[in-house]
Amino acid sequence: MAAELTAQQLTAQHRPTLDRALEAIRTRAYWSPHPEHPKAYGENGSLDLAAGKAAFDALLGTRLDLGQPGTDGWVDGETSPYGVELGVSYPHADPDVLLPAMKAGMRAWRDAGAETRALVCLEILKRIGDRTLEFAHAVMHTSGQAFMMAFQAGGPHAQDRGLEAVAYAYAEQTRTPGTAEWTKPQGKREPLALTKRFTPVPRGIGLVVGCNTFPTWNGYPGLFASLATGNAVLVKPHPRAVLPLALTVQVARRVLTEAGFDPNLVALAAERPGEGIAGTLATRPEIRIVDYTGSTEFGDWLEANARHAQVYTEKAGVNTVIVESVGDYRGMLANLAFSLSLYSGQMCTAPQNLLIPRDGVTTDQGHKSFDEVVADLAGAVDGLLGDDTRAVGLLGALVNPGVKDRLEAAADLGEVALASRRITHPEFPDAVVRTPVIVKLDGAKPDDEAACMSECFGPVSFAVAVDSASDAADLLRRTVREKGAMTVGAYTTSPEFEEEVREVCLEEAAQLSLNLTGGVYVNQTAAFSDFHGSGGNPAANAALTDAAFVANRFRVVEVRREA
Amino acid sequence: MAAELTAQQLTAQHRPTLDRALEAIRTRAYWSPHPEHPKAYGENGSLDLAAGKAAFDALLGTRLDLGQPGTDGWVDGETSPYGVELGVSYPHADPDVLLPAMKAGMRAWRDAGAETRALVCLEILKRIGDRTLEFAHAVMHTSGQAFMMAFQAGGPHAQDRGLEAVAYAYAEQTRTPGTAEWTKPQGKREPLALTKRFTPVPRGIGLVVGCNTFPTWNGYPGLFASLATGNAVLVKPHPRAVLPLALTVQVARRVLTEAGFDPNLVALAAERPGEGIAGTLATRPEIRIVDYTGSTEFGDWLEANARHAQVYTEKAGVNTVIVESVGDYRGMLANLAFSLSLYSGQMCTAPQNLLIPRDGVTTDQGHKSFDEVVADLAGAVDGLLGDDTRAVGLLGALVNPGVKDRLEAAADLGEVALASRRITHPEFPDAVVRTPVIVKLDGAKPDDEAACMSECFGPVSFAVAVDSASDAADLLRRTVREKGAMTVGAYTTSPEFEEEVREVCLEEAAQLSLNLTGGVYVNQTAAFSDFHGSGGNPAANAALTDAAFVANRFRVVEVRREA
Repeated sequence: MAAELTAQQLTAQHRPTLDRALEAIRTRAYWSPHPEHPKAYGENGSLDLAAGKAAFDALLGTRLDLGQPGTDGWVDGETSPYGVELGVSYPHADPDVLLPAMKAGMRAWRDAGAETRALVCLEILKRIGDRTLEFAHAVMHTSGQAFMMAFQAGGPHAQDRGLEAVAYAYAEQTRTPGTAEWTKPQGKREPLALTKRFTPVPRGIGLVVGCNTFPTWNGYPGLFASLATGNAVLVKPHPRAVLPLALTVQVARRVLTEAGFDPNLVALAAERPGEGIAGTLATRPEIRIVDYTGSTEFGDWLEANARHAQVYTEKAGVNTVIVESVGDYRGMLANLAFSLSLYSGQMCTAPQNLLIPRDGVTTDQGHKSFDEVVADLAGAVDGLLGDDTRAVGLLGALVNPGVKDRLEAAADLGEVALASRRITHPEFPDAVVRTPVIVKLDGAKPDDEAACMSECFGPVSFAVAVDSASDAADLLRRTVREKGAMTVGAYTTSPEFEEEVREVCLEEAAQLSLNLTGGVYVNQTAAFSDFHGSGGNPAANAALTDAAFVANRFRVVEVRREA
Repeated sequence: MAAELTAQQLTAQHRPTLDRALEAIRTRAYWSPHPEHPKAYGENGSLDLAAGKAAFDALLGTRLDLGQPGTDGWVDGETSPYGVELGVSYPHADPDVLLPAMKAGMRAWRDAGAETRALVCLEILKRIGDRTLEFAHAVMHTSGQAFMMAFQAGGPHAQDRGLEAVAYAYAEQTRTPGTAEWTKPQGKREPLALTKRFTPVPRGIGLVVGCNTFPTWNGYPGLFASLATGNAVLVKPHPRAVLPLALTVQVARRVLTEAGFDPNLVALAAERPGEGIAGTLATRPEIRIVDYTGSTEFGDWLEANARHAQVYTEKAGVNTVIVESVGDYRGMLANLAFSLSLYSGQMCTAPQNLLIPRDGVTTDQGHKSFDEVVADLAGAVDGLLGDDTRAVGLLGALVNPGVKDRLEAAADLGEVALASRRITHPEFPDAVVRTPVIVKLDGAKPDDEAACMSECFGPVSFAVAVDSASDAADLLRRTVREKGAMTVGAYTTSPEFEEEVREVCLEEAAQLSLNLTGGVYVNQTAAFSDFHGSGGNPAANAALTDAAFVANRFRVVEVRREA
């Protein structure tokens, strides 16, 4: 049977996008082919929005049969953080059947070459992109993100990260030419001449272990990096966030089939409650790559136990913002208030510790004492979230009961500068919606320092009084070195202090945002330009996305012969 | 004090070479800036050769004081495999003093940027290159290689591999621009605009654990890859092959000083007999990168125990040549005889198992039975090594008593097709010089299969009778998968069998040489063109050199602010 998607069609449709993505990762200037506004997805405005919702609703209560080999039962049980029972059931896989079946198509996928693989990946991303408004609901009702964030972060931004990984994978595989003629002079004798052929070969099956909060955004880089480098990919979603990745697998399998490849190159491994299959799968000999986002405990376990595989982990970290001196005090307050509120702080990039000198800081609004800064920030959060409808649109819902427990426990750690407030979601009364708490700590007290140096994932931040700006830099250094950090922020008008903080970040490999006061937030990174994590501190052993993230997912085999 | 080597001088002298190296790794066509003939090193022929020897002789019995901090004693005891006591003593280091001292200069080295680091590395290589004739003796009298091989492999070829690593390191660090202006449209509102600065930052101190047989060739890639990416490098040579790496460290420290950097960025860690400091050093928190060549046992230990570091290992493997059908029988015999004899088979790339169908093979000289092929190969080796002077120039000396023991034990494993012969070295009577043994095994017998699937490092090869060519391919696959392989060779005139072997090599990630009958040998790889190992089978977790070998030795830290 001829493939429905021909190489010519794929090239015509996607090669320009691939070229543009390759340029973007070289310049790291702004670029995205995936529009960020719902209106761009169709020409009928609210009708398209409704159609996206209807497509999502039509999935509820259905069986998502992916046609996978080795399906030995069905798994369901997802409940939205908004209280909706999704009721979608997914295939449960027998790895002894599924994994060998996934390997069957790898030779043809390898032989297709880097360009075809990249173009097929771009077609998968395009099909996902066409259903962005439907995916938005799937992400919303698994992560608890508010709709607009689920749409943006789970849609175009996730697709950007996937495309970025494809571009890096393509660039890396094509750095070595397909063939080379090697002719070595031998003085007066005939030169030695060899013809060499170089082939990128995959490592095996890549395992993507998804997370609850950003199933697509954190899942796509590893999925597309492994697939584009010739590997098969088994997707093991978080048990509470299966739907977005199951739909992704469904789309991938369909596109692979249409392009003439084996659909089993991409498969889903959903698990029964409490089954904990990630560790079992990661240590299977067929699995040679693991991409993981989640707890430090399990990430460390993977790194220690899946040593036959390349393991890329994003784990816990403690993010710091230092306020040393401020050129735009109101801008800083608004910017930080948004960063603390967005998705109830349930981002690996959200600030946790706000280090402020106990003697206060100079600002464009005059000197502000420690208490004033904290109170003004609390006020800014209050103002931002004063209207319940707007608040739920920013906060979303708490993703699981653990976050709520931590939030409630945080109030006992110190003086509460801003109390968390319960909000009833107008549409989803069962959703657990809470505003952030801000707790004051004293960096000079050992107990307080210990508290702020533990990750407290969720809408909790600590305003930490420090003796001096240099003490803040020291605490930052220790925090990054010992606990890791995905982001660091600093507000300073002092070139000397800026240099001090920058040096800490360079030495401890942390990504630094300086003096953000406008519409870019420390917790946001843009694909093709910003690195997500550094891969050089304990929060993550890889960065999204750089060459190191893709270069070891394949190897190059050389066949040489006399010319 | 102003640097004696200015940036302008370095650029003028080395930037063209760097550019040419960057082109070479893109095209993988033949290139080397390091001449392969001793005559190229000076204009006075034998006088230059004598001067190189004299420079080496002048080192004997001396103390090589590198001026390193934390020197707490002196270490000596190297004995040449040719029987000469070197008597050179080296600093023994207290790591509690030396390692912190090595970190002191890293900030300036980091801030110098990728280009300056590359150019300084090229100057180090140039200074080493100027002393190639001296290094040749140092390599000869530590590895046991014959002079011409020690000159070539230990000199220009090692320098090539070092330069190749520098080129990859430079290319990798400059793929991300130094700065980017990021401007994101916001419809009718002002665009969001950020200025981003990207800095490659080192991981820490790289540890190079050298080997006995190729101290410079196997040591330079890791040394220069780590140094060029901004790390400090601690070189821990094999206790019997200290001198070539100690001289390398001496040159590096001098060049770093002249270029205005801290010499402690490169240091030596020589050890007392039996001290076994590699494991202690590799698990120090300051060590963040390890490059190792040696036994599988210790390589596996490093991978399991130095998990805070990036660990690049080249370990044992079992290399196979399959003889299925031959288009140039005499050429094959000559080529294989050389491969088995060169440096007494003490190369990680030397063939061990020669798989030959028990019913014989078709050749351009008519059908040859299994026994005929083996006898003809034995004859070819005999002919190649018939003249003792020529033989010692090819064989060199056995590097240690373990190789001699294995050689002697091998004769008991099966029928000896070619007995090993003792040769007295005309110049060094204490050298242990032996011709290779060829032992016949039967691949259908489990004991024989077990014997040939263990690495028998040294001048030992097994002529293994197999039931069919496909059985040969199967045994090849199992050998590479279970034991690893640095090289695979095959002789075949059948397109089908060629495809079968190629597929095994692609699936098991082994580097394949087909039908070599001329002056290129399966055990030789050329920098800038051939990959040494694949990094995809148990023989090595990295290839020399590709992007994966350098991309994770540094991280990129981003500092962003509103434009």
